[in-house]
Formats: sequence, structure tokens, C-alpha cells
Amino acid sequence: MTNNYRVVVHFDGTEYYGWQFQRPEYPTIQAELIRVLKIIAKKQVLVTGSSRTDAGVHSSGLTANFHLPITIEPESLRRALNSLLPKDIRIMECQLMDKSFNARFGAHSKTYVYRIFTGQVQSPFSQRFALHIPFPLDVKAMRKAARYFVGAKDFSSFTSDEPGKKRAREVDMFKMQVKNEEITFSVRGKSFLRYMVRNMVGTLIDVGKGKIKAEEIPAIFAAKDRRRAGQTAPAKGLTLVKVEYQLQKPQGTPE
Amino acid sequence: MTNNYRVVVHFDGTEYYGWQFQRPEYPTIQAELIRVLKIIAKKQVLVTGSSRTDAGVHSSGLTANFHLPITIEPESLRRALNSLLPKDIRIMECQLMDKSFNARFGAHSKTYVYRIFTGQVQSPFSQRFALHIPFPLDVKAMRKAARYFVGAKDFSSFTSDEPGKKRAREVDMFKMQVKNEEITFSVRGKSFLRYMVRNMVGTLIDVGKGKIKAEEIPAIFAAKDRRRAGQTAPAKGLTLVKVEYQLQKPQGTPE
Repeated sequence: MTNNYRVVVHFDGTEYYGWQFQRPEYPTIQAELIRVLKIIAKKQVLVTGSSRTDAGVHSSGLTANFHLPITIEPESLRRALNSLLPKDIRIMECQLMDKSFNARFGAHSKTYVYRIFTGQVQSPFSQRFALHIPFPLDVKAMRKAARYFVGAKDFSSFTSDEPGKKRAREVDMFKMQVKNEEITFSVRGKSFLRYMVRNMVGTLIDVGKGKIKAEEIPAIFAAKDRRRAGQTAPAKGLTLVKVEYQLQKPQGTPE
Repeated sequence: MTNNYRVVVHFDGTEYYGWQFQRPEYPTIQAELIRVLKIIAKKQVLVTGSSRTDAGVHSSGLTANFHLPITIEPESLRRALNSLLPKDIRIMECQLMDKSFNARFGAHSKTYVYRIFTGQVQSPFSQRFALHIPFPLDVKAMRKAARYFVGAKDFSSFTSDEPGKKRAREVDMFKMQVKNEEITFSVRGKSFLRYMVRNMVGTLIDVGKGKIKAEEIPAIFAAKDRRRAGQTAPAKGLTLVKVEYQLQKPQGTPE
């Protein structure tokens, strides 16, 4: 008998090698969760995450699930997890779910936010969470270029994924907001290729610098060649903010 | 011939042993400034700070000054300093001042902010800058108690300073704001004794927990005994936000 728990995990990814477990000497979010769940459940459990975030990327929405061989109220489990996890990883929500819930395969949309600060001096209080480019960018050209990223397309030019995999993805929202000296991109899709969001943002930064013209974006898509697009924007500006699921039945009480 | 520069330094104090230089193996803000100024001026220079902040305390207002034996535009100096300093220390302002300006003795008021988050789970994005108390505090009692801190008083019960020193200080503002699950104290005075702000806040936390009654504060002042007041609130919630000076003449151009 096991209980299937869903958790929403917020983390400051600065000190981590991303979500996914690698070697023990590299701290990752998944490894931390496995470690503390072993203390709580007295057994090694599998932890499934909605997304493999890159090293240095943050989360205020990543969702995970795991089947525990013990009976514990979600609220008590949340408290136990937070008391054992480092302070830069926090379990914000914890729910008991139907046996079938899977945080990875059930996800039908993910939203990422990328923040850029373009003022001269970046505050030490936000420097962990926003990229600093210390001069104004051509936001009009960037806005124009960003429109080309919306829709169902072959994103080969915007991923480092090895050849042979399917590269068609659908971006259903790519919003750009400019407020004072901060530029924020919000990107939503069902799923993303490796480095895809960071490569789109990096290309927009090159547009903002005048290195790439907005009108060139369709040709970059058509080339299906990673070398045609812009740089990969640094991880620190990126945060996974929301993962949405089809209606899933939360279960009443643990078995 | 030297030029007297005034800088406003913002820093995330999490990784530092406070403002003041100690031993080389302990990173401090002052030591970092001395280090990078030596690179720029090719000479060891004295750096005077408005305040000695404790280990772990942050700043969005600490002011410092130093006399450089070189001629450099304030704007170029600011850029040079920021390019050499770690990202958790930033020079936000840099001005050329009259020879007489002294960041320590010229200061006529300092404002500190102390932040407490009382929700159940503290976000990893603000955990470096606010104390977490995961349950509601009696804010009405705290507000009542906070009023006793305003005025010219003997603060012996609220400092760890060794006996014999003068302990009279004047607090001209002690404001408490409650917004959702965050409590913010703003405290202003000409100068403060060691740990004084953190001891006042710690005492208010004990009032909020019901350990100390608001009405007991006058007796705690009268006792002139550190042991009568509450705990020292942790450094991480404290930020020096503003240092004000009597009107000082900025100088036009470097000599």
C-alpha cells in the first residue's frame, strides 16, 4: 500500500546543478528530496519531477510526485520535508493524489519567466534572479522578434538536443513586459526542448543589441541549425513559475 | 593631493562577517573595498564607513568615504569598483566630496529595517533577507511595546556593549508595519549601540510570543541589565537602509 503525494517545490537554484539527480557530489533538487524522503519514509523512493531544470535555474512552480509506503497527512509531510530540506528549497504545497497522477506525464503546460535588468548597477538583492545587461536594449525590435516564437514550430535552431529527436514544439504564449529597467519574458508551452527558453531569450538579447534583426528570425527557424540563433541566455535569469495539469482528482485521506 | 570620494554601498551580507575589517580570512565589506581600491589607486587606502554592521546584516544605504591619491571621475570610479567587487556588493552612488566629509562622524541619522515573515513556509527568494517565525505573533501587543523604544533613553538593557560606555541614545522613529504575513520595523536614530536594533526587535518578538508583556518594557529599561530584555534577533532580517548627513558640499571636479 502506498500513497501518492504531489508537491510544489520553490527553490533558489543558484547553488544547484539543476533538478535532476546526477552524481552524489553534485547537489541537485531531486537528490535533496530523495535524501529527506528516505529519512521520513525509511526507504529509498522514486521522485518524479515535471521538468528537468538546468543548473542555476530557479523554481516557483516545479511540481513533483512520489509514492510513499507510509501513511502521513499531507500537511505533516510538508512540515517534515521543510524541516529537513535546506532553506533554498521549500515545499509550498503538498496534496494526496489519485494513484494515477504523474507529475511528468500529466503536465499539460509549463510557464517560465526570464528576467533581465538593464540598469547600470544591479542590486545585490535581486542579482541571483535576474540577468544583468548594463545598457538599454532595443525593446521595440525585441518585441517584434518575440512574436515569431509563438505557435507550433520546429525549434531545432533553438536547442542543444542531439540530432534525431523530434524538435516540434508549440509555444502558446511569449509575452514581453518592460517596466523601468527590467525586461520580463513569460513563455508558456506544453513542453520545451533542452535550453529552448534560454536560446530564444538569448536570441532576443542579440536582437536587442542589434546583432540580429527581428526579420531574420523566420530564416533562423528555417535553417534548423543551432549556430544560426543567438547565445544561450545565462541560467540565473530563468524561473519555472507554473506547471498546469488536466483536472486531477486529489484523494481525501491517506490509506 | 588627494580626492575625497563618497560611496553608497548596497550589499547582501549573508556571506560576510559584517562591515569592519577583521582578519584576512574573514571576508568583510570593508576589506573588499580596500582590496579593490588598492588595485585602482595602486596604494593601500583607508576606508571609513558610516556604521559597523554585524555579520550577516545587509545594506541598501551604508555610506563610506576614502581619499584617493589619483584623479578619476566619480562615474568611472563607480564602474571600476563594481567591475572588481563581488556581485553581492555594489556601489550604487559615487560622488566627489569636500575634503572635510567623513562618512562616520558626519552622519546625523541612520535608518534600519527589520523584516519578519510569519507565514508557514518562507519563500527561498526572500529567505536571505527576512527572519522566519512560522506562526502569527501578537502584533497588537508588539505595537504597544514598540512605542516605549522611541525617545532619548538609557539603552543599557538592549546592548551587549561592555560596561562603562555611555549608553544613552535617541531613537526618533520606531515604526511597525504589518502586511499580509510580513512584519517590518523601521528604526531611525543618530547612532545605535552594539546589537541595539536586534535586541529591541528580539524583545518585541518575545512580546509577540507572549513571553514578555508590553507593560514590562519600562521596567526592563530601568533595570539597565541586558539579561532582562529578550533575545537578540538574528542578523539576516536586518538591513541598514539609509544614512543621512548634514548638508555637505559635493566638489565639482577631481583635482
